Amino acid sequence: MGSPAELYIGVDIGGTKVLAAEVSASGEVLATARRTTPGRRVRVELVEDALTEAVHEVADGRPITGVGLAAAGFVDNAGERVMFAPHLPWRGDPTRSRLEARWGTLVVLDNDANCAARAELELGVARGAGDALLVTMGTGIGGAVVLGGTLLRGRNGMAGEFGHMQVVPAGLPCECGGTGCWEQYSSGNALVRFVRARMDVPHHSPSMLEELCGGDPAGITGPLITQAARAGDRLSLSAFASVGEWLGIGLANLAAAFDPELLVIGGGVSAADDLLLDPAREALADSLVAGRHRVIPPVLRAAFGPEAGVIGAAAMARTGF
Amino acid sequence: MGSPAELYIGVDIGGTKVLAAEVSASGEVLATARRTTPGRRVRVELVEDALTEAVHEVADGRPITGVGLAAAGFVDNAGERVMFAPHLPWRGDPTRSRLEARWGTLVVLDNDANCAARAELELGVARGAGDALLVTMGTGIGGAVVLGGTLLRGRNGMAGEFGHMQVVPAGLPCECGGTGCWEQYSSGNALVRFVRARMDVPHHSPSMLEELCGGDPAGITGPLITQAARAGDRLSLSAFASVGEWLGIGLANLAAAFDPELLVIGGGVSAADDLLLDPAREALADSLVAGRHRVIPPVLRAAFGPEAGVIGAAAMARTGF
Repeated sequence: MGSPAELYIGVDIGGTKVLAAEVSASGEVLATARRTTPGRRVRVELVEDALTEAVHEVADGRPITGVGLAAAGFVDNAGERVMFAPHLPWRGDPTRSRLEARWGTLVVLDNDANCAARAELELGVARGAGDALLVTMGTGIGGAVVLGGTLLRGRNGMAGEFGHMQVVPAGLPCECGGTGCWEQYSSGNALVRFVRARMDVPHHSPSMLEELCGGDPAGITGPLITQAARAGDRLSLSAFASVGEWLGIGLANLAAAFDPELLVIGGGVSAADDLLLDPAREALADSLVAGRHRVIPPVLRAAFGPEAGVIGAAAMARTGF
Repeated sequence: MGSPAELYIGVDIGGTKVLAAEVSASGEVLATARRTTPGRRVRVELVEDALTEAVHEVADGRPITGVGLAAAGFVDNAGERVMFAPHLPWRGDPTRSRLEARWGTLVVLDNDANCAARAELELGVARGAGDALLVTMGTGIGGAVVLGGTLLRGRNGMAGEFGHMQVVPAGLPCECGGTGCWEQYSSGNALVRFVRARMDVPHHSPSMLEELCGGDPAGITGPLITQAARAGDRLSLSAFASVGEWLGIGLANLAAAFDPELLVIGGGVSAADDLLLDPAREALADSLVAGRHRVIPPVLRAAFGPEAGVIGAAAMARTGF
């Protein structure tokens, strides 16, 4: 709704790129602009300049009603500051208010997983759900917690850091400094690691991935594995069986703690859909405590793909942090 | 508060015993009555008769204002039915309304971990906390989730089943049918298993537990291990170091997901206090993601011991489910 003159812009600020988009009230992306993220060792102003350029390109001279920012990092629970982001230079800067002053329009800020959850909650598969968990599977695992229809932020604004729950004692080392974190076993990186480890073995069974990656295992990506699995490649199907089973085990842990109505899986890896979600559903049903005495929550693929962040950020600018 | 004629009774219905207590508004236990739990293979009426006797003994002819029931089992999220309890005969019976009709007074019902949380929240160490998690360490691990000052119940009334989150893939078998559940590594049972396994080894180092248990490892209990650890017994201290470290690892997983203000540890094992909590605090600080960028939640011992269930149940009868 809103008058036709209203202009809401969502901005997804990732480690490699900035995507700004004009988004309609129903979640349609009407116009976009992209910039390369200047990096994390630069002055904060350079990143804020890139955001400003992208926002102005989308606005194209029109007055802006509000901007929502989805940042790949920890945002404080007031939505004011990016406290820490592995790939961005902010370290507790008052990003929201600074950009609000610079742009002369309403600005709201949240982390990217919360924004993606907001998109699903207001416009996607979690619409009308009271309690839902969103698990975003990309390079790693991000997460968001919806309780009573609103986002749980937590004491530090860090609720939903599911990817760093330990599932294997003294397991694989994680970028976070820990070991055995869930995202080491269930993520885009885990998919790629699974197939590379097997292709490194001499005399391994042939896989169509060898052709797809032009003979260089370093060129293997999640989307290539999805493509090969869809074509029936056994190695790629095994990778999804493993990563999907680990997804289901982690979901069972979350369901034991939260007992949610709904589990929503988003992020790049979720493009594989049932290749990923079927083994996850099976492992969830096998692992969840008291499975015969409860309703096991459905595991749904998120409605929104790579644009979930900008759609949710714009929705948040419309309806409030 | 309340007129002096008010009589609120809390009843803790465990697998082996029933404890009923008159509880004051400030949480004092004023009178108690006990019965043996008739078992899980008996008619439901036998358990309800035992509850009735215990409640009437406490009331001693006075009119009852309200009764709160704390059941060791899964209670539906409306607080009407015990859906399933490993040691009790109820299987979806309308326990609350049936006893309310039988006793002619207000009856409320919840699971024992939620009641213990209610005691801490209204009268104990979680007073004033918005978001807190309660972990109850007894034979196994029970749990409760407080968000925005109220209990999270979940879709099935099963939120807070922390003990059955898997922490070791293909780990120790659990009574729930799963493997590698947290409570297999951090609980009263885990403490006892730890020392018995080491005492079974021929030529093991001597431990004062041998004397305390009269030479029969089958006689070793959690309280004996606590007693020996307090006296400096190395084996018992190692058991607390292990169970405490596992407690901290599981708390780090929960804190990653919920980002709570406070972690409260109750149940029988928490009587060991810092013997248990110090290694847990250390493991929490080591394991929690982004530990340097957040406030790590304090780990506090619950204010109430074995009477937490009756105190919380009576509080719930006063202030509502």
